Amino acid sequence: MTARLEISYDGSGFSGWAVQPDRRTVQAELERALELVGGRPIALTVAGRTDAGVHALCQVASHAGEPVGAGAVNANLPRDVRILTSEATPDGFDARADARSRRYRYRITNARVQSPFEVGRALHWRWPLDRELLERCAELAVGTHNFTAFTRTQTRHVHFRREVLDAVWIAEPDSPDLKFEIEADSFLRNMVRTLVGTMIAVGQGRMTIDQYQALLAGRPRCEAGNTAAAHGLYLVGVRY
Amino acid sequence: MTARLEISYDGSGFSGWAVQPDRRTVQAELERALELVGGRPIALTVAGRTDAGVHALCQVASHAGEPVGAGAVNANLPRDVRILTSEATPDGFDARADARSRRYRYRITNARVQSPFEVGRALHWRWPLDRELLERCAELAVGTHNFTAFTRTQTRHVHFRREVLDAVWIAEPDSPDLKFEIEADSFLRNMVRTLVGTMIAVGQGRMTIDQYQALLAGRPRCEAGNTAAAHGLYLVGVRY
Repeated sequence: MTARLEISYDGSGFSGWAVQPDRRTVQAELERALELVGGRPIALTVAGRTDAGVHALCQVASHAGEPVGAGAVNANLPRDVRILTSEATPDGFDARADARSRRYRYRITNARVQSPFEVGRALHWRWPLDRELLERCAELAVGTHNFTAFTRTQTRHVHFRREVLDAVWIAEPDSPDLKFEIEADSFLRNMVRTLVGTMIAVGQGRMTIDQYQALLAGRPRCEAGNTAAAHGLYLVGVRY
Repeated sequence: MTARLEISYDGSGFSGWAVQPDRRTVQAELERALELVGGRPIALTVAGRTDAGVHALCQVASHAGEPVGAGAVNANLPRDVRILTSEATPDGFDARADARSRRYRYRITNARVQSPFEVGRALHWRWPLDRELLERCAELAVGTHNFTAFTRTQTRHVHFRREVLDAVWIAEPDSPDLKFEIEADSFLRNMVRTLVGTMIAVGQGRMTIDQYQALLAGRPRCEAGNTAAAHGLYLVGVRY
């Protein structure tokens, strides 16, 4: 039997998903609580290994064996991570290998003053951004591209082509908040954050659309923009 | 000259608005930063003295003398409190005495699992609530009543009649979140939180509508429901 979990977490207090010695991580908190309630060691496989500070609205993980009751596990978890569902799924389901696509959101407060309720939950960007240029950047990102410019220089990735299925900027009504949503088969490390940092450079007039478009053909990392802060990024969901 | 400030704060980390010895309060943080930037001691008068844990979306305060630049003060404030605007206003304006009405919101997550992003920002109420009964309670609260049942037994209040101008429950779309909004000329201490705790008792079937209605005629505090937790309460705004 295999179990499938849907999980949400506020990434502010975590050093990311993956277990690291002497660090507070989402995986470590979950595996500790699952073992406590399930009465056996449980190892999680996850769809999207998020970095420190990155949030998840609906992360997916799997483990071998029977599902453990979500209510009991939640009662043994800190309140910044919650299991939304814990269900039996066909044998051999693998949350990482079987994922067809992942969707991320990046949130920006584009105003002089940021709401205290958005601290750690959206990037505060004070300067004007040309929303049409941002939207044009999003449209150009859709399709299969070589995203070498949008990941770390030192990387374990071997293949740099990814297929972006959807990319769009959305202005939240009655609010100075903007969000970028992107869905792709999979993502390179830092890919969404570097795309956002580079689109901000275009939206501010520091980079042209042509320069940005050229980056999507496999230019080196140094030609792209900054990596936007982790705390604006959310894993929205995973498709199978 | 008189200055008028609009202020927002996440109440989680504060022992309320009003200065208290050895406690972190919103007023103390603001007066410290205003003095630092303005170069003179500044005493604030506030529209709504919020309790520990209570949030403000748009609190209003006033002080004698010239306004101090919001940007410079914000740069000297912790990020859980922000000045939204700081403007000159006709001489003698008093944020407390001149307020015609205050509006509060109370947020509830009415679902088995609460989002990690709502911790400290909405009451988590797991049990079913009858939304029609809640709405009926809100309608009955509108008008002038004796709210003795809805404030502390030990109180400095002398008059217990207040005029509720608007009261409504709103279900947030695509979300298990509910909110109660109420506007009144002024509020007794704990009034919104005790109204919410009592309406929850009605919505759960532990109290009848008739019992609830009788409370609005000046019954003693012990007949009303619990005081709902501070962290679900927001001061939305103030009218002048």
